[in-house]
Amino acid sequence: MPTYVIPQRDMEFVLYELLNIKQTLAQLPAFTDVDVETINQTIDAAGRFAKEVLAPLNGIGDAQGCSIIDGKVKTPDGFPAAYQRFVEAGWPTLSASEQYGGQHFPSVVTNALFELFQAANLSWCMFVGIAHGAYKCIHRYGSSELKAIYLPYLVNGQWTATMCLTESHCGSDLGLIRSQAVPQNDGSFRITGSKIFISGGDHDLAQNIVHLVLARLPGAPVGSKGISLFLVPKFVPNADGSLKPLNNVTATSLEHKTGLRGSATCAMNFDGASGWLVGEEGRGVMNLFLMMNEARLGVGIQAVGVSQQAHQNAVDYARERLQMRSVRGAKFPDQAADPIMVHADVRRMLLTQKAWTEGARMLVYWLSLQLDIEAAHPDPIARRQAADLVTLLTPVAKAFSSENASSVADLTVQVYGGHGYMVDCGVEQFVRDARVQQIYEGTNGIQAQDLLGRKVLADGGEKLGALLQLISDFVADHWTNLAMREFLSPLINLPQQLLQLTEQLTQAADNNPDEIGAAANDYLRILGHVVFAYLFARAAAVAGAKIAFHDPFYGAKLATTRFYFAKLLPEVAYRFQSVQAGTAVLDQLEETSWFL
Amino acid sequence: MPTYVIPQRDMEFVLYELLNIKQTLAQLPAFTDVDVETINQTIDAAGRFAKEVLAPLNGIGDAQGCSIIDGKVKTPDGFPAAYQRFVEAGWPTLSASEQYGGQHFPSVVTNALFELFQAANLSWCMFVGIAHGAYKCIHRYGSSELKAIYLPYLVNGQWTATMCLTESHCGSDLGLIRSQAVPQNDGSFRITGSKIFISGGDHDLAQNIVHLVLARLPGAPVGSKGISLFLVPKFVPNADGSLKPLNNVTATSLEHKTGLRGSATCAMNFDGASGWLVGEEGRGVMNLFLMMNEARLGVGIQAVGVSQQAHQNAVDYARERLQMRSVRGAKFPDQAADPIMVHADVRRMLLTQKAWTEGARMLVYWLSLQLDIEAAHPDPIARRQAADLVTLLTPVAKAFSSENASSVADLTVQVYGGHGYMVDCGVEQFVRDARVQQIYEGTNGIQAQDLLGRKVLADGGEKLGALLQLISDFVADHWTNLAMREFLSPLINLPQQLLQLTEQLTQAADNNPDEIGAAANDYLRILGHVVFAYLFARAAAVAGAKIAFHDPFYGAKLATTRFYFAKLLPEVAYRFQSVQAGTAVLDQLEETSWFL
Repeated sequence: MPTYVIPQRDMEFVLYELLNIKQTLAQLPAFTDVDVETINQTIDAAGRFAKEVLAPLNGIGDAQGCSIIDGKVKTPDGFPAAYQRFVEAGWPTLSASEQYGGQHFPSVVTNALFELFQAANLSWCMFVGIAHGAYKCIHRYGSSELKAIYLPYLVNGQWTATMCLTESHCGSDLGLIRSQAVPQNDGSFRITGSKIFISGGDHDLAQNIVHLVLARLPGAPVGSKGISLFLVPKFVPNADGSLKPLNNVTATSLEHKTGLRGSATCAMNFDGASGWLVGEEGRGVMNLFLMMNEARLGVGIQAVGVSQQAHQNAVDYARERLQMRSVRGAKFPDQAADPIMVHADVRRMLLTQKAWTEGARMLVYWLSLQLDIEAAHPDPIARRQAADLVTLLTPVAKAFSSENASSVADLTVQVYGGHGYMVDCGVEQFVRDARVQQIYEGTNGIQAQDLLGRKVLADGGEKLGALLQLISDFVADHWTNLAMREFLSPLINLPQQLLQLTEQLTQAADNNPDEIGAAANDYLRILGHVVFAYLFARAAAVAGAKIAFHDPFYGAKLATTRFYFAKLLPEVAYRFQSVQAGTAVLDQLEETSWFL
Repeated sequence: MPTYVIPQRDMEFVLYELLNIKQTLAQLPAFTDVDVETINQTIDAAGRFAKEVLAPLNGIGDAQGCSIIDGKVKTPDGFPAAYQRFVEAGWPTLSASEQYGGQHFPSVVTNALFELFQAANLSWCMFVGIAHGAYKCIHRYGSSELKAIYLPYLVNGQWTATMCLTESHCGSDLGLIRSQAVPQNDGSFRITGSKIFISGGDHDLAQNIVHLVLARLPGAPVGSKGISLFLVPKFVPNADGSLKPLNNVTATSLEHKTGLRGSATCAMNFDGASGWLVGEEGRGVMNLFLMMNEARLGVGIQAVGVSQQAHQNAVDYARERLQMRSVRGAKFPDQAADPIMVHADVRRMLLTQKAWTEGARMLVYWLSLQLDIEAAHPDPIARRQAADLVTLLTPVAKAFSSENASSVADLTVQVYGGHGYMVDCGVEQFVRDARVQQIYEGTNGIQAQDLLGRKVLADGGEKLGALLQLISDFVADHWTNLAMREFLSPLINLPQQLLQLTEQLTQAADNNPDEIGAAANDYLRILGHVVFAYLFARAAAVAGAKIAFHDPFYGAKLATTRFYFAKLLPEVAYRFQSVQAGTAVLDQLEETSWFL
């Protein structure tokens, strides 16, 4: 079965050396009391929890799945107990405000912790991963009464949360939602409708569940403007904190999924359930997007976690499995054959995994730090710049990282060969579990459209321009360092090329809006690489400055960076060509001509 | 659940219009009596069998899997009955010699039939797909006695076959095989050893199973030169055709696999089982490769089948699923939303599937026709040219097609979105079932090494040169046709570029043999695209000549070809860059530096 080792030094490299979060957090008054020692102790404790408690439950969750017994969802053996330990350790509370019992940890630290949890057990994390987004959403849009009642319990983990968007006929297109909310005299609403694909819609981990539900008020306009957001608890709390009998909310069935089998994906029936409006009427989709954007970055964290876990196990196997000799002569003549890591093509697969994993970690941690700057920097311009980076790059963190994570997981199966195809080895689970990251919280196709249409073109390329300027400035700053040239040369022309492409697409989209959809997938891959190339070059600048210490860790960082530039970044050559095809080649096949 | 429609016109296009097999077969004396009407009737009957008998068992096989009851393997419900119908219809016999009861059908026709069977049910086909390779191997290397006893039963399907190579410690590296064969006075051998991953190692479909087993004679040299091939029947036949009691061969356990769950993947124990030598001592690996090459092309056929099946279902879903409006305005204003096929990015996914599927079909059918030419052309030069094409391109047909097939299956899940992740939709099974194609019969890494090392460089590029000349000749022949220029322009420089790359790699490999392994993966992708570009251009020449008929079928062929050239072929730009990295970037990470 898979093993899990905490990638502590890799995490610390990104936090302290690449991002220098100590210095950044020191500029944020709200976070000046966070010290490195506390962060490291927390990471250490979270790592042990991930390794010792969550990882051993990963295979169990996959094998057992969830079930409905007497109308209640039962989670796999060990899941509830692990949740109790999670709550007792105070993990649910880390980023929340102290006002509601939280510890007000910076997002960059919280998200690093969640990398550990996700690496160990993606399914289990589905029950807890959404709580902070729900907290943020209620904190921002909820009435003070709702906040006072619900936030302390979300923060201390006694209650969990869900996002109830999807209905059987609508996923990407939330404007089609049919669930109804009928106002009551006491200011509450009766919510009626059926939702599907609700992660953690019911479970036996916590005493209550707070559903955030999109529904339609009577007479609301058609489309997404007619949709409002409601808070619907599984049990409505009394003023004294005790809980009323079950609200009219039930998990009617569980999905049988290809992966994430330990997670309870529920079909939910709301049958006149009591709910409360969160935010203004008709702004439900928009308000929920605060939570959704958090969830999208969260997918990036999942991607880092599963990538790291899959990669580690591939390396372990490649060190142990003996097959054939190195073509340069036996490396281990005393053994029957050499470990397969000696073969160049196996190293290619392992380095591909390592580069995708480390690139995704740099991106996700970097964006998480921007969240902290956005929330707490005294300078409004700095807050705005940070917010723009998060807005622009969240779809990249979600889609680019999740696509690459599926490749990483898939490569582990390939390194294992026939053994990897067998369930008992436990690595094919990574592929199945990771796959949904490309689908949920907005499919990667939706992410690509969102990136090119709403994030890049809608503001005339302003947010993109700021990012590219950052990259150009970095190149200019390091150009005199000759040792950096090898990492700057492949990067130096990318901002200009991407700007040109963006201008071209701006014009093309003016003529035919389908050009956005036709280009979006390639465009997201290109921007993903541009950001990865920038972050890998930054990592090389840090590692290169310390190479005189003869610490092999920095040598490995440079080796991974060289591999990325030589073997993965060239994908942009393909994408720049492919994007030129435009929508013309997509339009030629008549609707009736697919099968003849 | 998935549906299956026979892609009859696509198949006929490749057989009769692209390859013009009628004309080619007319030149082969052994096949002059095969007429188009017989072929079409056979395809039609096989298609109905695939659709009506095999396809409905695909989900059942996945859900039930196989089990061992009282030491015997029980296959999923309906599998044995389907096999009986398969035998009664005469399908196992098609390509075998009439001397042994076969129908001596050309390989190109037989393989087209197997596309249908594989599309409908990959797992079920694992029980029957290897019989013809075993027939060929015994036919070529077996004694006349073995041939007389075994071939008629393999041909009529009363007995099935297996390939017993892998042991737990050796898959790619057959030189490590430990199974022993001890000679007996009667000319037979006692075979002892444990094999794993044996497809159809035991089952309840047929009365007997013929295992082709690699084992080592006493005192044989170490490595693959010490390995011989043995025929070990489950039940040894008596002279009168009746069967002796069970030979000492047992399926000790079944693998629990991520996919192909309806197939019985057995761990086999040979405990002094009676066996007979096939071919010369010490040439077991080499002789088995006749069967292995057949199996590798067979993986290409599996890839076509699952690609076609996955693609069809994605198109169906994209036509039915209503989400959002076309960005160019509602296409179906009467419906709540437009079908997702109107969205450019969805069409990109569907066309990617269509191009990979049709490209793989052209390649596999073309190579199958070369097998017929190799076997039966009166001109030895023509036979040699055909054999060289098969030798060169079998690893491409296996690896390129299977990688692309996994992409195609994966895209169906993506088109289905969240619904695709659910087992009940039946499309995630395509991903799990297809995945092993990249692993078995030699991993795709092994295929790439085989291609570049043994097939391209070992003969100084002679076989490659002949293929590239064929392509250049095609370009020259059609250059005056202005309508063809758009398909020739992207192709015209590829042969020269590939030749240059090959020369460069020849020199690099002389200095450091690891350069082959470092380049192999990119090289296989490049050659795959060069061959696909050639075949798509040929298809365009055929379709273009008929476009005046205003038949939308030919319009679709041109549309798919344009899509391939604009959106998929540009991958070569990436690969040509990536291959330049050489082995240097793979060697920099010290063995101890993966985790620090």
